[in-house]
Amino acid sequence: MEVKDYGLSRVSGRVLDGPTNPMVTPLLTDLYQFTMAYAYWKAGKHQERAVFDLYFRKNPFGGEYTIFAGLEECIKFLANFKFTEDEISFVCESLAGSCEDGFCDYLRGLDCSEVELYATPEGSVVFPKVPLLRIEGPVAVVQLLETPLLNLVNYASLVATNAARHRFVAGKSKMLLEFGLRRAQGPDGGIGASKYSYIGGFDATSNVAAGKLFGIPLRGTHSHAFVSSYMSLDEIVEKSLRSSDGSSSCEDFVSLVQTWLNKIQWSNSLRNVFGETNQSELAAFTSYALAFPNNFLALVDTYDVMRSGIPNFCAVALALSDLGYKAVGIRLDSGDLAYLSFEARKFFCTIEKEFGVLGFEKMIITASNDLNEETLDALNKQGHEVDAFGIGTYLVTCFTQAALGCVFKLVEINNQPRIKLSEDVSKVSIPCKKRCYRLYGREGYPLVDIMTGENEPSPKVGERILCRHPFNESKRAYVVPQKVEELLKCYWPGSSGKAREDLPPLKDIRTRCIDQLELMRPDHMRRLNPTPYKVSVSAKLYDFIHFLWLNEAPVGELQ
Amino acid sequence: MEVKDYGLSRVSGRVLDGPTNPMVTPLLTDLYQFTMAYAYWKAGKHQERAVFDLYFRKNPFGGEYTIFAGLEECIKFLANFKFTEDEISFVCESLAGSCEDGFCDYLRGLDCSEVELYATPEGSVVFPKVPLLRIEGPVAVVQLLETPLLNLVNYASLVATNAARHRFVAGKSKMLLEFGLRRAQGPDGGIGASKYSYIGGFDATSNVAAGKLFGIPLRGTHSHAFVSSYMSLDEIVEKSLRSSDGSSSCEDFVSLVQTWLNKIQWSNSLRNVFGETNQSELAAFTSYALAFPNNFLALVDTYDVMRSGIPNFCAVALALSDLGYKAVGIRLDSGDLAYLSFEARKFFCTIEKEFGVLGFEKMIITASNDLNEETLDALNKQGHEVDAFGIGTYLVTCFTQAALGCVFKLVEINNQPRIKLSEDVSKVSIPCKKRCYRLYGREGYPLVDIMTGENEPSPKVGERILCRHPFNESKRAYVVPQKVEELLKCYWPGSSGKAREDLPPLKDIRTRCIDQLELMRPDHMRRLNPTPYKVSVSAKLYDFIHFLWLNEAPVGELQ
Repeated sequence: MEVKDYGLSRVSGRVLDGPTNPMVTPLLTDLYQFTMAYAYWKAGKHQERAVFDLYFRKNPFGGEYTIFAGLEECIKFLANFKFTEDEISFVCESLAGSCEDGFCDYLRGLDCSEVELYATPEGSVVFPKVPLLRIEGPVAVVQLLETPLLNLVNYASLVATNAARHRFVAGKSKMLLEFGLRRAQGPDGGIGASKYSYIGGFDATSNVAAGKLFGIPLRGTHSHAFVSSYMSLDEIVEKSLRSSDGSSSCEDFVSLVQTWLNKIQWSNSLRNVFGETNQSELAAFTSYALAFPNNFLALVDTYDVMRSGIPNFCAVALALSDLGYKAVGIRLDSGDLAYLSFEARKFFCTIEKEFGVLGFEKMIITASNDLNEETLDALNKQGHEVDAFGIGTYLVTCFTQAALGCVFKLVEINNQPRIKLSEDVSKVSIPCKKRCYRLYGREGYPLVDIMTGENEPSPKVGERILCRHPFNESKRAYVVPQKVEELLKCYWPGSSGKAREDLPPLKDIRTRCIDQLELMRPDHMRRLNPTPYKVSVSAKLYDFIHFLWLNEAPVGELQ
Repeated sequence: MEVKDYGLSRVSGRVLDGPTNPMVTPLLTDLYQFTMAYAYWKAGKHQERAVFDLYFRKNPFGGEYTIFAGLEECIKFLANFKFTEDEISFVCESLAGSCEDGFCDYLRGLDCSEVELYATPEGSVVFPKVPLLRIEGPVAVVQLLETPLLNLVNYASLVATNAARHRFVAGKSKMLLEFGLRRAQGPDGGIGASKYSYIGGFDATSNVAAGKLFGIPLRGTHSHAFVSSYMSLDEIVEKSLRSSDGSSSCEDFVSLVQTWLNKIQWSNSLRNVFGETNQSELAAFTSYALAFPNNFLALVDTYDVMRSGIPNFCAVALALSDLGYKAVGIRLDSGDLAYLSFEARKFFCTIEKEFGVLGFEKMIITASNDLNEETLDALNKQGHEVDAFGIGTYLVTCFTQAALGCVFKLVEINNQPRIKLSEDVSKVSIPCKKRCYRLYGREGYPLVDIMTGENEPSPKVGERILCRHPFNESKRAYVVPQKVEELLKCYWPGSSGKAREDLPPLKDIRTRCIDQLELMRPDHMRRLNPTPYKVSVSAKLYDFIHFLWLNEAPVGELQ
């Protein structure tokens, strides 16, 4: 691979690495961005200054909010935007016969030094129609950025939102684990899911690569295959285990486990509750405990949860306890999770009472198996004893809605505002280079987002502001904000010399997301019939939109 | 980044590159694969020879077939499976306090030389329960491969199947273009979609990176933003265009276009059909034609298809025709595509007749805008004049079913067959290291897939074979095959010295897929209530499954 001169990434004082996925190059775009760039260049129009907004039209998952994510990757992409010779040759060949040499020279010189990118901070709660990104620069360059920016924002925001919704249903006290790598849409579908689920409020992931790349806490113990790979306790050769404090050693941990299993089976409270447990499972648990005496968490549903998995687990956990180790808990991966979690908890309580092992009843119960918002909600309604949820397929593939529809619209070129019309009003774009604000009410809740023209005075605290629906004449309201927050900040000044917002560490983005969700009025957040959050434009921008609209729309003739 | 010693990738005589996405490393796996590897290692069990099957349980999209894809990436992954020091340190830290140094040494020495991988050829039509991959090797290594292999196969097969289904509805004669990069689940969700849609029968993609990586034909022209970036024809400064054969030059192509627009507007057949067309659109089309006179395809719905886009397009196309160029066609991206395609075709026919421009009526009509299987089907039912479809979101995110549920099950260890039980019969695994065959009937159609034990004699042409449903006693049938095809071939022999199947070029995989689909009995393929294709086991394997099942299942007591 050619070594790139990451020129601009060093311009602004600080080196910015490239995107996490090295496949994110300037070629990760649609061919038409290059045909347009060529046509602009051929017409001498390529340097015209254009402003594009990136936004979505509808919140996903039937909800009324979205989490914005993907910004850091966008900035890293801009910072390292530079064509290799190899890429330039490929592009020029792809333009089939039409490509003049001068265009190759043009591509050779391209970077994002003339581009400015303004964005809502990553991890923010965001709403339809309000730009998440505003990108300004030479029209040909900004067009080339369209596809990669959409790609980097769409899925990131979708999965962060999905994670936030799962967190909302699960409640704050539960541990949420992302387990989706195997079902994700490709390798970095998996890596992206881990990163953006964490932003959306998950606690940990099973994805080791994501743990290494982003410092996300890792979780995982063993699978059914591990259990069925054992046949019997005879397979365990090395049977000794040192006590937790190192002071003594148990020479035959296997016998200790068997003794405990016997004691449980014939105890007063558990007599006749189960018969012979599965021995390959017992062997697997024992072996696992010998490897991880400090971190013993067992998958208990390979054969039969209550008649084999739980008794086997308890025998091993009690043996560990004799040596000063505290077992962590169990995982359930099938069956009626609510019922099984209750039964398991009862069993743990009985053990605690029967054998006086303090804290045994607090054993962590993890549940997995095709969980999603609905099943979490159903579990809550039934009641359950689950402490942690492992969520995979539905989270990472965003199964109920697999795409967010962010679009990238030209709103101004050469200081001329542009509007994109459509017979479908929801698809009409809001023209002009804009500023965007969030207005907060007396109770601290965000009340409304408002977009204004770039040069309008900003809304002020305590001042009465008319907020208008961008397209519906009759929808308008006065607001007296208690707090005004400007939403778009400069994250990529190019070489303009403007100040640049720092890219915060992942943990801070996650905290921002959690804090912002906390701040929302509850009726916007509920799963059933949530109230739409209001998005508005200033009176001046409203008038301008409608002036432009009338100007551009053809007048029909009914026949 | 550390430079890896891609040791094994050179062993088998030929160098195999790493996976397309450099993020596909041995760390792209679930943490529990490492905790299990450690536990196996600690128990001295890590070298035990295990056999795992990778398969799915249910065809996606409510259909009765699936396309297997992702194999090449799996093999490239195996060939380059090697830990860097950095990765080893990270893994050992992640095993939190439990990790002995010997395990690091073990990881250091790991590669896939002791692994063998058997697979159905990529691009094959495949069915539930039959292994797509059979992987044999030391249990600890094969477990580490589970997550990445699932990740590489699941989405690849899902999107290839989705593409094949779109092709089935669209029909063979239509051009199918993959336009999904911007909505894909992350960067290589996009790249993977392009590759695997191509395998599934698409003709081209808009994704330039995928074009470069895989040699897939590229398509694309311009967007709405290009149209609205123009204000008027005055913007076009360089107005000259050489004729196609280079013999002459038109000094003012803009005037030529205007002349043609006038002629159309006042022609006998088109008088009063439209009024003044949008001038920014006309300028954009003219400018685009000046850049791509050989490849003029215009997006005609920015303002009004019939009153502006089509007349403007025709004016430019006729002007090009004067200079010996043949315009390509139009793209429709909104509105009633069936209706608009008819109207557009009518307009083209009228132009051909009115001005005697031969072939003008054959102008290619491309349609896009949230197309999917349903909308293609609806368009077919209404009738339409569309020649090419651009399909994005629904194709690449597999919107109607965003995940394929491939699983990876232990079927044998130390020559002992293993079964995974479940209260849900469809989740019971089929034990034993198996061979798999496809049996063909007299009419050339595949009749049934059959799995046998590894050492059973293979089914023979003309011989009567009893095929049994693996779990349903009463479902069985005799088959006399006219052709027998063994499904699993050795694609990764490790260092066993066995012969290795070549990885065919992408085009051949695509051809295989198209040919195999062609061969299927039509009732398996139809969209509504397709007939399930039969998947069976030999009588001997059937008996063995049920013997093992009874052996492992706990006997309950009703209380």
